[in-house]
Amino acid sequence: MSAQLTGFDTRPRSRVEAGQLRRLGIDTGHEHVVYLNKDSPICRSEGFGAHSRLELRVGTRRMLATLNIVQNESLGVDEVGLSESAWLALLPGAGERVVIAHAPSVDSLTSVRAKIYGQPLDEGALHGIVRDIVENRYSAIEMAAFIAAASGDHLSLEEVIWLTKAMVQTGTQLHWPQPLVVDKHCIGGLAGNRTTPIVVAIATELGLILPKTSSRAITSAAGTADTMAMLAPVDLDETQTRHVVEACGGCIVWGGAMNLAPADERLIRIERALDVDSVGQLVASVLSKKIAAGSTHVVIDVPVGPTAKVRSHAEAGVLATLLRRVASAFGLQLRVLISDGTQPIGRGVGPALEAHDVLAVLRNEPHAPIDLRERALTVAAAILELGGAANAETSLAMATTCLETGRAWQRFQSICVAQGGMRTPGKAAYQQVVPAAQQGRVTAIDNRRLSRVAKLAGAPAAPLAGLTLDAHLGETVAGGQPLFTLHAESPGELAYAMEYVSRHPCIVCVEAFS
Amino acid sequence: MSAQLTGFDTRPRSRVEAGQLRRLGIDTGHEHVVYLNKDSPICRSEGFGAHSRLELRVGTRRMLATLNIVQNESLGVDEVGLSESAWLALLPGAGERVVIAHAPSVDSLTSVRAKIYGQPLDEGALHGIVRDIVENRYSAIEMAAFIAAASGDHLSLEEVIWLTKAMVQTGTQLHWPQPLVVDKHCIGGLAGNRTTPIVVAIATELGLILPKTSSRAITSAAGTADTMAMLAPVDLDETQTRHVVEACGGCIVWGGAMNLAPADERLIRIERALDVDSVGQLVASVLSKKIAAGSTHVVIDVPVGPTAKVRSHAEAGVLATLLRRVASAFGLQLRVLISDGTQPIGRGVGPALEAHDVLAVLRNEPHAPIDLRERALTVAAAILELGGAANAETSLAMATTCLETGRAWQRFQSICVAQGGMRTPGKAAYQQVVPAAQQGRVTAIDNRRLSRVAKLAGAPAAPLAGLTLDAHLGETVAGGQPLFTLHAESPGELAYAMEYVSRHPCIVCVEAFS
Repeated sequence: MSAQLTGFDTRPRSRVEAGQLRRLGIDTGHEHVVYLNKDSPICRSEGFGAHSRLELRVGTRRMLATLNIVQNESLGVDEVGLSESAWLALLPGAGERVVIAHAPSVDSLTSVRAKIYGQPLDEGALHGIVRDIVENRYSAIEMAAFIAAASGDHLSLEEVIWLTKAMVQTGTQLHWPQPLVVDKHCIGGLAGNRTTPIVVAIATELGLILPKTSSRAITSAAGTADTMAMLAPVDLDETQTRHVVEACGGCIVWGGAMNLAPADERLIRIERALDVDSVGQLVASVLSKKIAAGSTHVVIDVPVGPTAKVRSHAEAGVLATLLRRVASAFGLQLRVLISDGTQPIGRGVGPALEAHDVLAVLRNEPHAPIDLRERALTVAAAILELGGAANAETSLAMATTCLETGRAWQRFQSICVAQGGMRTPGKAAYQQVVPAAQQGRVTAIDNRRLSRVAKLAGAPAAPLAGLTLDAHLGETVAGGQPLFTLHAESPGELAYAMEYVSRHPCIVCVEAFS
Repeated sequence: MSAQLTGFDTRPRSRVEAGQLRRLGIDTGHEHVVYLNKDSPICRSEGFGAHSRLELRVGTRRMLATLNIVQNESLGVDEVGLSESAWLALLPGAGERVVIAHAPSVDSLTSVRAKIYGQPLDEGALHGIVRDIVENRYSAIEMAAFIAAASGDHLSLEEVIWLTKAMVQTGTQLHWPQPLVVDKHCIGGLAGNRTTPIVVAIATELGLILPKTSSRAITSAAGTADTMAMLAPVDLDETQTRHVVEACGGCIVWGGAMNLAPADERLIRIERALDVDSVGQLVASVLSKKIAAGSTHVVIDVPVGPTAKVRSHAEAGVLATLLRRVASAFGLQLRVLISDGTQPIGRGVGPALEAHDVLAVLRNEPHAPIDLRERALTVAAAILELGGAANAETSLAMATTCLETGRAWQRFQSICVAQGGMRTPGKAAYQQVVPAAQQGRVTAIDNRRLSRVAKLAGAPAAPLAGLTLDAHLGETVAGGQPLFTLHAESPGELAYAMEYVSRHPCIVCVEAFS
């Protein structure tokens, strides 16, 4: 055990105990950081350095944090500064005292070291790691070390299963009265592609239970929850969500408040920062959320394309096999759809612009994006089959009829009302067309850069911002014809996005006829 | 390429360019951190989040930094806050403007990912990684990912050789006019054991060249440079060091200012924070420093004991083999001494207290610690043999005579004078004896906890602080007889150390006779 400084009343100790907690308002990501003055008694006496791990106790609440040392008087020697996440984790009351001690050793780090040294981990070891991650006992570098050790093909099938199980068990698990609960998921990377609201409307209208919990954007221009929030409230708690599902057979709500597989988001943030891909961690991430949400039958859409998340059919095959094997260990019925990921689906990229596409399809408007309509119908048909509501011959026709007759649109409106009331998104104040520089054919569309442009234009924080795609792969365009149109809520953001576009002429690539 | 925001003069851009650089004085370890207000134009427009990597440019100077976002008004929307290391790296002049852009991708991270996926790295890849680490292009989590991927037995012999070479090439390399330059190193973990000043005095007095560059303590109670600093100035630059070596054949200076294998310290800090051991990285760390310092013949002391760095003879054997193989690739003559690491060597632990031990041995004082004297003579004899100044039959006798006749002491004083003048360390104001609780035999001494006690008492920042060991393994002690004595410069630090001692009764373990 390391030094725990309770019951110790000499000068340095008591001064630290009486330390004023101060909310510094610094967002350090998910890593809790504690700031101490270099001349504070505890820094001087303990020889702490930056990166030291400390335990903070306020009342019965405990927290581990990484130390940063303040070299000047902006923090007093009697003050204990907290980063934003640390403050929110401790939530100290006025005048509450803090006790600082060396962080006790985190036992599960022994398992991380074992994995680094190439040893297999058992169920208990993986559970310990995930539990400590959820309880914020890992520093960012410790998370990074675990991710590096568990990437590539370093996780066996059993380890992926146990990792998935641990991620489910360390969060909330929803249970539904119905024996058959369907769900869908798309392995992202494609701009637009907002099929979920359409699929939920069709599947629930045709009798299936589809309680969809979605995420907000982490690095994309819009998550499903961001888009749905343009049409209805999505910040429902578990009780409110259950009422919606009882009334409508389904919902499209933000899952963030429900604590489903909470380890996932923490791992994803570090994985993205490292840009490390791991099929085992991806499968655990996707399936843990579905299992925690109480799904029994799940369709996974895997778009394949050079700028999508999955870049080749070989990669998609490996992913599909592991998804099926792990799902089967949990008794989860799974169907993987490998789909075309060479270009965005739909026209809009950004919360409101994607919502407009969804509305156009549901309302059967003549200019509704055909690709989004077709992709949504394909996914809906697969869900109808998997859920036993149709067979392979009838499923697509059933889904299509449901949409064309307006039944899906009625159902969607009911869901919106049940979630708190339907809304109609507006349009951004500033638009600018990006035209083709020359006549020719559209030969490539860069999904990643397109998302980046939409984010520079303000999405998702500015919900009306983003872009609309005006040309698709294989189409012939004249010089000056619009390729895509930027939407922004401020001229500054519009200019930002345009500056990026001007330096990347091949976001939508037009090749002249030879 | 990611967005680089030069030549772009709309509102948000120009405000960021005009941003006031502000030194926040926050020590974040070696990771450069830039702080921006959440409402700053660049945060809002770019959708940056905590952990984003940014490039900062001031004049022609560039730096990568990790973003932390300030949620309140303590940082203005037009201000760009810098952590202490970031400020010192950029050193902006008054009124200089900063340009902020997305960090360009760091190419060598592709090699880190390849290693994570289990692929071997070639010489160029390892050089790229080490160069980018030295140039501070890696965030802490990226360093952690590399360390995890390269730990255990994940580095082949070739990879360890190339890593060592890269660490040498990315720093200063010293060259000496003499063809034969000896050096010594101890694979640490043992408290005390301050043989270096004695060994340098004997070896140089007997004609060898031993330009010793030492480190200050990173996590121990004293480094060789801390102890030597109690006896003479050690902060010499390369020119001053060369003058000392010309005059005396050797020196004992702080190597930190000379930029020898600078990647090493950065890697070590993250390795220690992760508590990950890797024999490959240890060998690269030790040998890169010796090669960079221009040594041709090196003796490595490997103390083995349950609380030393190397805990078993099997482990020591693996380490010795890899040390020899890598050394041989560089034409370095190496001798590994496996020694007893079951207890501290000498009495003092702490800069001044170890210096007193060194002086007592050099002056042949009657109460000089015999174990330190013997260990120093053993290492000196090995160096004399390896350097061709003696053979196996004569070396120990030659070293002993050199010490006993006072020649080593004369030589040491000459070195101190050449380094800037000899000093004599004082004694700490506060002492407290830790007595045996009962009669019995000393059966174990915990090196790690002993170091911890010395640090709690104030070492190395308080240079007179630490402890002196009053009993050794196997000795019989009476109840109440001193086991060790704490030395502190303040009563608070003394109390701190005593509190720890009171909770760990078996730092020096006395077993009653049965």
